Amino acid sequence: MTGSVTVIGLGPGDPRLLTQAASEALAQAQDLIGYIPYVARVPDRPGLTKHATDNRVEIDRAGHALALAASGRRVAVVSGGDPGVFAMAAAIFEAVENGAPEWRHLAITVEPGITAMLAAAARLGAPLGGDFCAMSLSDNLKPWEVITARLEAVLRVDFVISLYNPISSARPWQLGAALGLAAEHRSPETPVVFARAVSRPDEAIRVLTLAQARETTADMATMVIIGASGTRLIPRGDGAAPFVYTPRSVPA
Amino acid sequence: MTGSVTVIGLGPGDPRLLTQAASEALAQAQDLIGYIPYVARVPDRPGLTKHATDNRVEIDRAGHALALAASGRRVAVVSGGDPGVFAMAAAIFEAVENGAPEWRHLAITVEPGITAMLAAAARLGAPLGGDFCAMSLSDNLKPWEVITARLEAVLRVDFVISLYNPISSARPWQLGAALGLAAEHRSPETPVVFARAVSRPDEAIRVLTLAQARETTADMATMVIIGASGTRLIPRGDGAAPFVYTPRSVPA
Repeated sequence: MTGSVTVIGLGPGDPRLLTQAASEALAQAQDLIGYIPYVARVPDRPGLTKHATDNRVEIDRAGHALALAASGRRVAVVSGGDPGVFAMAAAIFEAVENGAPEWRHLAITVEPGITAMLAAAARLGAPLGGDFCAMSLSDNLKPWEVITARLEAVLRVDFVISLYNPISSARPWQLGAALGLAAEHRSPETPVVFARAVSRPDEAIRVLTLAQARETTADMATMVIIGASGTRLIPRGDGAAPFVYTPRSVPA
Repeated sequence: MTGSVTVIGLGPGDPRLLTQAASEALAQAQDLIGYIPYVARVPDRPGLTKHATDNRVEIDRAGHALALAASGRRVAVVSGGDPGVFAMAAAIFEAVENGAPEWRHLAITVEPGITAMLAAAARLGAPLGGDFCAMSLSDNLKPWEVITARLEAVLRVDFVISLYNPISSARPWQLGAALGLAAEHRSPETPVVFARAVSRPDEAIRVLTLAQARETTADMATMVIIGASGTRLIPRGDGAAPFVYTPRSVPA
């Protein structure tokens, strides 16, 4: 069995934010598998077969990639951001564990990428400068009670909180509920960032207070970062957006 | 004032894990500032002045970078990993906030990088496949009581936990204490990974149980990932290391 699967992080969108290793892995692939907009980011070339699929079938997509590799193909599975953060890598390993025994012997590698929270943080300043956590707000794969228990725990001990998958047409109220919970633990002046489509042509970044964020709508392409008690703005004047950062120190 | 500061993430070590944007920013710099081993990673070239300093003076280094930029120079500040994750970006913005008023008007940008936890996760499989947090275990900048309160909170609600700065000669016991706390909340069989110097020639990755981890020593170059209750291994045979992953789903 000489086939392989490489799970590749395409970063937030701008091709300049791919690693060289990810670019090289893309150049070597024979088959490219992923959600439609991610596959579309990779230029066509002779010898590359593209298999673009809808978003809601991660585990089928993973099985398809592994079966192709088992037949001897060099397969690339692409994710936006980093494949290990709320993306395709976990689905691949779920499929390996539950699939054909020979899949465990395939060459499976993961090429990391710039995940949305790091891209958003870089644009803003250093909002993740202290301890932070990353949560998916989707209750498709875990109970809402688990999500609220986790949110309350990290709000209580003052983590910066990055929310992936904050909202979708099927999950319209969860972000409001999460920000409502945040308001029980943090000041209405706490910085909250809505960072949409970072590094893409339709990028839109809004630096809000928690109170403003509760009155603001987001969409699926938005990453939400809720500041900790120490997170602060540095006004710049000249119409420039303020810097947002979290100091490294926590006072006693 | 035409000078600039770009805070650049060099990734975990392998130059192939830099983004193209980071490489381009390095190529444009006139002055390069950072901790000795990070500055050493950047090849010498005519027109580039290197200023390598010891690790314990982040805020002085930040002030130096901003002063050089204010004098009109194009300055690159380099960090390992991602500059926004327990690295130089927060120190730069602390210096901006507390420094000369004109520093707020400098062109300051951050180029994100592959932080150690993403590099380690990619090597292992998908250990960060669910909700996760990143904490610095250093009590130089925050009280140990804050660290233990945060650890207990995220252990209780079952986050995967990435520990940066787990140990140093001046902080020899903190990692053991953190793993002891983990043992009060998680099974002795919980996967714990010690990922040292990922992507560098001296890379060493150990997949342990929590019980084994408590008997194992680490060093400053090690990233520790403590699995959640769902984190699991996929044995591969053939002497290959097992895959480590956290399923996306949390059962009700």
